[in-house]
Formats: sequence, C-alpha cells, structure tokens
Amino acid sequence: MSLLDNVKRPTLLLDEHRCRENIRLLAEKARQSGVIFRPHFKSHQSAAIGEWFRREGVTAITVSSVGMAQYFAEAGWNDITIAFPVNLRELEEIDRLAAKFSLNLLVNALETLLVLGDKLKNRVGYFIEIDTGYHRSGILPCNVTLAERLILSPGPGTRLVFQGFLSHFGESYQVFGPDEVGKVYSNGVSALRQLRDAIPTTQHGILSVGDTPTCSMLKEFQGVDEIRPGNFLFYDVMQLGIGACTAGQIALCLAAPVVEVHPARREAVVYAGAIHLAKEGIVRDGEMLYGLVTRLSETGWSEPLQGCAVTGISQEHGIVRLDQATIRTLRPGDLIGILPVHACLTAAAMKGYVTLEGKSISTFTGI
Amino acid sequence: MSLLDNVKRPTLLLDEHRCRENIRLLAEKARQSGVIFRPHFKSHQSAAIGEWFRREGVTAITVSSVGMAQYFAEAGWNDITIAFPVNLRELEEIDRLAAKFSLNLLVNALETLLVLGDKLKNRVGYFIEIDTGYHRSGILPCNVTLAERLILSPGPGTRLVFQGFLSHFGESYQVFGPDEVGKVYSNGVSALRQLRDAIPTTQHGILSVGDTPTCSMLKEFQGVDEIRPGNFLFYDVMQLGIGACTAGQIALCLAAPVVEVHPARREAVVYAGAIHLAKEGIVRDGEMLYGLVTRLSETGWSEPLQGCAVTGISQEHGIVRLDQATIRTLRPGDLIGILPVHACLTAAAMKGYVTLEGKSISTFTGI
Repeated sequence: MSLLDNVKRPTLLLDEHRCRENIRLLAEKARQSGVIFRPHFKSHQSAAIGEWFRREGVTAITVSSVGMAQYFAEAGWNDITIAFPVNLRELEEIDRLAAKFSLNLLVNALETLLVLGDKLKNRVGYFIEIDTGYHRSGILPCNVTLAERLILSPGPGTRLVFQGFLSHFGESYQVFGPDEVGKVYSNGVSALRQLRDAIPTTQHGILSVGDTPTCSMLKEFQGVDEIRPGNFLFYDVMQLGIGACTAGQIALCLAAPVVEVHPARREAVVYAGAIHLAKEGIVRDGEMLYGLVTRLSETGWSEPLQGCAVTGISQEHGIVRLDQATIRTLRPGDLIGILPVHACLTAAAMKGYVTLEGKSISTFTGI
Repeated sequence: MSLLDNVKRPTLLLDEHRCRENIRLLAEKARQSGVIFRPHFKSHQSAAIGEWFRREGVTAITVSSVGMAQYFAEAGWNDITIAFPVNLRELEEIDRLAAKFSLNLLVNALETLLVLGDKLKNRVGYFIEIDTGYHRSGILPCNVTLAERLILSPGPGTRLVFQGFLSHFGESYQVFGPDEVGKVYSNGVSALRQLRDAIPTTQHGILSVGDTPTCSMLKEFQGVDEIRPGNFLFYDVMQLGIGACTAGQIALCLAAPVVEVHPARREAVVYAGAIHLAKEGIVRDGEMLYGLVTRLSETGWSEPLQGCAVTGISQEHGIVRLDQATIRTLRPGDLIGILPVHACLTAAAMKGYVTLEGKSISTFTGI
C-alpha cells in the first residue's frame, strides 16, 4: 500500500533525507567553528532520530525535563544537560540519573544550589543561566555578585561542579533576517563575556548558547564554546518567517484528512486540530495563522501553496483557506499537508512520525 | 504523604466533588427540560469519569474521534455519536464499531453519504450538522435542498438512518452574560427549526445542540431534543469570562512547581508550559493570558489571585505574574495552581488527573 493510502488519521510525516541533511549541515558548521555541538533533543524526543545525530559525531545532548533525560539515557546517551531551571521536587530522580552518567543542571538561585549541595549524593555539573534579553529564565548579566556566589558557594571538593554560563537567545524568534539575528547573537555573546570577565575567579567554565535562528543563520560561532539548538532538524513556518530556513528545508508536515469542502467559503475543514498541531499561531498580514498548506504526494510535499493557510483551529477541527484551483478538485477523504508553525510543539503533541518511506518512528511518551 | 508532597511534576488536580456536582446539575436540568443528555466526553476522555455520568442516568454520549469511540465502547458505552464530520479514511474502523453498538455519525456532504452507503456493512445513524453562525463545519440552514437530499438519498431499507439535525453554537464562546448567550441559543434554535419545517418530508429526526455556555446559562432547553455539552464538568477561565460558571465551580487546576522567583520582575518561572497547559490564550485588558493563578492547599485551591496570571508560555516554561505578597513568600520548589484557559485542551495534553483525595485517574491515551 502507498504512503498516503496508509494515512487514516492526522499523521506527522517526516522527510528523513531533509532532516538528516539539516543535522549534517549544523554538525559540520559546529565542527568548523570548533564548538561543542550539544543539540536540544526536546524538539524530536525520539531515540531513533537521536541515532541520526550520533552518526554525525554527536555525543552530548540537551533535554528539557528529567523524564526526557531518563528516556535518552536508556537509549545510551551519557552526557546530558537538562536545560530547564532545576525542579527541586525531582531531586531523587536527578540523583539517580547523576549516579549513572554525566548530568548537568541549570541552577539560577542560591537557595536551589544549597538544597542540591545538601541533598544530592552524586556528582552533578551545573550551568548558570544568563538572561541576556529574553526575560524568561536566568539571572541578569549585571548580577555579577550573584553569579560569583553561585560559582563559589559549593566550595572545593563538592559534588556540585560549575560548568559555565548558558543562555537561550529567544529574542532571535522576534526578529527577521541575518542582520537582526546576527545582532541578537553578538549582543548576547558580548553580555555573556562581559559577565564572565567581570567575575574575579579563575573558575570560568564554558559559554553555551542555543537557538535555531542564530545557529542556522550565523556562518560561525565566535566567542562561545557550545551550541544547543533543537528545532533546526525540522524547521517550520516560524523559522521560515525569521529567514532561518528555506521552505525546502522544512522536514515535518502533518498529513490531514479533508472532511468537508466549502467552495463558497473557499475553505475546507480538516481533521487536524489543536491536539495534533498544537495551537501556535503566527501573524501574517494582520491575520493569525496556524500552519501553511502543501499538496502531498507519495514522495513528499510541495512548497507552501500561495494564499492558503490554516486560519482556525479547535480541538480536532482545522479550518483551511484554499485557492480556487485547489478547492475545485478537493474532496472529502483527500489529504492535504500542513506545515506546522512550531514543529517542536507539533512533534510533542503527535508523539510519533512516519517517514516518506513509510517507517514509523516512536518518541518519548511522557510529558 | 500529603497530596501536594506527592506532586513532583506538573500535575492536573481534579476536584471530584465539584466535578460531580457540575455533572449532577446539568443532568438534572436536562431531565427537567425533557431533553436527552448526551454529554461530550472529549472534554475528559476518561472511562472512570464516564462512570460519574452513568450515576446520573446518562446512557448516551458524544465523542470527537473514532479512537475515542473505541475507547468508550470498551468501557461499556453502547450509544455513541461521533460529533465530527465523518473521516472517510476510517471507514473500516467505523464499520467495525457500528457492528457492536449504536453509532451516529455527522454527514454533511452528499458524496460522503454515497460512499458510506456503498461501503458500510452495518447500520449507522447519521446527523446533518447545521452551521447556524459559527462557520466551522456543517451546512447552512438556508440550504434546504441539500438537507432534504441528505435525508432522502439513502432511500428506504438502507443501513444509513437519518437521526436529525445537529449544531454546535460556538458563537456562545465569543459573547458575555446570560442575555447574549441566550440570544445565541434562540437564534440557533430558530434557524434549526425553520430549516426542519421547510423540508417537505416526514423524516424530521431530532434537534441536537451543545455548547457549555448555553447549556450552563439557560434555565431550560426549549425547542430542542438533545444537548451535548462537554466542558461544563470542569469549566475554566474561558467559561468564567463568559459568565457560564463561578470560580468556585472550576474543577481542574494544574499544580505547577516553581523553579525561579524574580521579585524585581514580580514574576515566577514555573514548570508548566505549552505541552502541559496547551497554548490557549484569552485577552484580558489588552493582554494575552494563558491561565489564572491560585494558591494550593491540601484540600484544593483558592479563588484566582487578584492581578496574577500566566503571561507567557513556551514548551516547558510558564511565566507567572504575581502580587507582592505572594512573590515575597514564594520559593523554588513551592507549588502554585494554574486554572486553565481551556480545560478540554489541558486535559487532552496532560492525559491524566489526580483527585484531591490523591486518586490517579487515567484517560484515553490516543490523540
């Protein structure tokens, strides 16, 4: 049976060739820049896809939860950074993981550090997250005193080992083009380096940064030691809007069964809702869109169809605006393709992929 | 160990008492109105919670996918409407279900009806969905000819049995207060009745409607035969904004571990992101909010804290704005409660509840 005949329900198609090429390109760029490539596996959450990274020489990874660290540890990864501020309610689980492999945490508060020092029995590395402008988590780069205390507090001979400063330049998602994205990078890196230079200690650790726009658009990674992008293996409509990828690099597409066609509205209703795509919107010409539309074939999907988009979304319903030519030929039971606005959230919602060769790929099943 | 000590990760707390009371109230109102109460189980997706409905005399249910119908059929439900336009790619699964119990579909296109008539071996009921103003799915009430053809096409002695007209008055989510919600209801019902009266056939079937605002706010259900609300068993911030419930009726609250406290920003970072809450926003005073904040205790949660809200959300991070008093006492490792904007999506994302008595409740695991 053909690939598309097998699609009965909303199905997340993965173009393995594009995905591996996206991985290869960034691994190669990291090598040429001489930085550690520690990709963020929260974007795909799959042990099988993890192997594609291993083929490119990757040995260290990033995840965003203790559960995900457990999952990838079972898949043989033994150098993992949990790039989310440490959750003190999971200390036992963290300690068990730290007994088995090289684990790094994010520690951004003294009281958190004290609890860790008091409770953990096994060696754990920690990064201090620096908020260089995104204002999500981390400490401000002007907070030199706190940074120094966070470095020195554990004291010598402790099980808590300072690894360096870590930042997520999330502002890169709010700009467009290589110049603006480049500015986010250089501002962020210079804030990190100023902080590091201001600290009167010899324990300086490394600088770790990571976001898909800067990692995709910069030609080299000056001034840092490690990059941790995640989304770049798939890319999506958001990255396309930033200019971080071409449409031809997007490696995920949700195959959505058409259940109604409304020529008068120039809309179709598809079986692909918030529980499949995840409800992430992007504003285009003043309108909120939840995905771009492609034509599916046995070998993949087309470029986004001009003027077509997912304009509404509820639990299982998607409302898709289509062009005249498409709507004329579309019938209930057909499939259309939807490029996700934010591939990581779609992947987390769908929990599984089907490659264009028809191979099913499973993922971490937790949340 | 106490309820809250057991919360290590984002956990969806369910106030069973409130939930059962919400169910009881609407079951009682439906009985008094003399309408069939066919609640939408997509909101909770749990066989165990289904039993609470059975206790209130419910014998017929609504779901939104074939997979969900299979799940509830295994839990002993034998009268199920799939209130989503039929997906022709799942005909085999539909036919297998129809062999076992009383199954109703939504059929809004002649070509879909023809395929069903051609392919299904077992008896299936069908509703025609009428779009009385929400413009999501269904046919327009002015489309009398199509409605009549959809009723008469299967012909006598067929396995396709017309059940009636069905509508979802989704406009009730965009208005406020009993007057406006009442108007949505009366406009919708009168459109349905006009359509039914205009059709020159004696096969008129029933009128089935269902949305939580109208079902919660109307005192009785004049002019219809069946109601299919779903969300009312939990309620949420959206329903509170519409005036469909009080804060004291909201039966779901996400317990979120605090991982950072930023007094200068008056914000905390919590472990509760888009993969837990689902990213559904609501605009309040020109600002997009992703949840309201409560104080948790061993016996439940407080009313929403004034001036506090989830103001940002990414995959695992939630940014919570807090009042001075709360932020002064909050520490990493503490818990806060988040009332979801849209409980159905949060429930679908979390796939499981913990009652205030500490009982774990599982759900359908599919999507």
